[in-house]
Amino acid sequence: MKRYKLIIAYDGTNYCGWQIQPRDITIESVLNEQLSKLIGEQVTVIGASRTDSGVHALGNVAVFDSDTTIPASRMARALNHHLPKDIVIQSCEEVDLEYHPRYQDTRKTYEYTIYNAEFNNPITARHHHFVYVPLDAKKMNQAAQIFMGEHNFISFCTTGGQAKTFTRTIYECTVEQKGNYITFRVTGNGFLYNMVRMMAGTLIQIGRGKKEISWVEEILNAAPKRVKAGPNAPAKGLTLVKIDYLNDNK
Amino acid sequence: MKRYKLIIAYDGTNYCGWQIQPRDITIESVLNEQLSKLIGEQVTVIGASRTDSGVHALGNVAVFDSDTTIPASRMARALNHHLPKDIVIQSCEEVDLEYHPRYQDTRKTYEYTIYNAEFNNPITARHHHFVYVPLDAKKMNQAAQIFMGEHNFISFCTTGGQAKTFTRTIYECTVEQKGNYITFRVTGNGFLYNMVRMMAGTLIQIGRGKKEISWVEEILNAAPKRVKAGPNAPAKGLTLVKIDYLNDNK
Repeated sequence: MKRYKLIIAYDGTNYCGWQIQPRDITIESVLNEQLSKLIGEQVTVIGASRTDSGVHALGNVAVFDSDTTIPASRMARALNHHLPKDIVIQSCEEVDLEYHPRYQDTRKTYEYTIYNAEFNNPITARHHHFVYVPLDAKKMNQAAQIFMGEHNFISFCTTGGQAKTFTRTIYECTVEQKGNYITFRVTGNGFLYNMVRMMAGTLIQIGRGKKEISWVEEILNAAPKRVKAGPNAPAKGLTLVKIDYLNDNK
Repeated sequence: MKRYKLIIAYDGTNYCGWQIQPRDITIESVLNEQLSKLIGEQVTVIGASRTDSGVHALGNVAVFDSDTTIPASRMARALNHHLPKDIVIQSCEEVDLEYHPRYQDTRKTYEYTIYNAEFNNPITARHHHFVYVPLDAKKMNQAAQIFMGEHNFISFCTTGGQAKTFTRTIYECTVEQKGNYITFRVTGNGFLYNMVRMMAGTLIQIGRGKKEISWVEEILNAAPKRVKAGPNAPAKGLTLVKIDYLNDNK
């Protein structure tokens, strides 16, 4: 028995998220189905991040166990041949049988992309959130700095998550503007349910002048009390860019 | 009677190009249909650039005549409300009745986007051409410089065009790499049928080392004889970025 680690990119538009659902098509269900077809035995992947419906990924991670004779070096190309075009394996390597994609120290990096102009750009519309009210990206970037470090993020998650603690550490947090695109990029040791989208929704409120920069501090300081943060920004703007494993024991 | 000028952006993936076809859905047919519905009379647009099937635009231009009472300042928003999400009017203004989007001196700017990596990026796959063979973008940029100026581009067009002369002037021509994306950007006073895609296909042959930089010069110097240039690169990588009207008589 060998364990294979996959790095997976996908356009989440047509999927009901990562996790298997009884009736809906998900990234996980498509991977299981096509891996099983390719290898000729029932295969079940374990994913690192259960991205929500409509969320994209450049570097989600999953492992699966198999006795297949297909070497890891050929697995990505062989599997891509079977997968729909909106799911593309980026790499495959063999790892220790103890390697688990979730129960390890990781740093996850997400990007939230906003298109800010009077009218939408239809070419990238599947992977940005369109905001026609002018946004002040510099102000958003200043507000983003307040997220840096260790905080109780209870107000930046929606109910429905399975988190036991709400403390997370943010290592990088920036808002950058290039032309009409504003990108919020954040790296942390973990994220609560809808946390990045609520951080994005909060920064947008500040960017459009509805709230002051100090609002982020007020929300964080209210913890452990849960107070109202910005709305959950739409899924289509969110991409899981990468997951770095700190003590990679492959 | 008033003449309205529209600037139009679209994701060309689901359309058989700009120009009306007997059976297929085109950008022009959708615009005519939705404009006619909005205004309540039969409206026919005249487009500046008849982009091919699958080609995208950020700034194609069209005009139409109407007696409507809808002011130009409200036309874009009203029309966008009727259009499918992959076609978005960027602006509308009133112009002289003599204003014709094609019979004027213009500079058109196109971008051809390549994603160059071992495996494809599914998030932007609708609007880039995926090349897995490593490309030398610096070499491609050097070759692109040879296109600058006035040349006979007879070898850089496929048959089927209606051009009477093959001489065109290129004002800007660059190849830039950012991460895995390589963008060929070109501005000229006009482009022959499939010209940008054949220029892109030629640069790709050079970038992958199949041909030398001097090949571009050889092809151009062979004119007026038609010789074999690079292949017509796929439509999905091409975007009409903008059309500048030099003597704008609006």
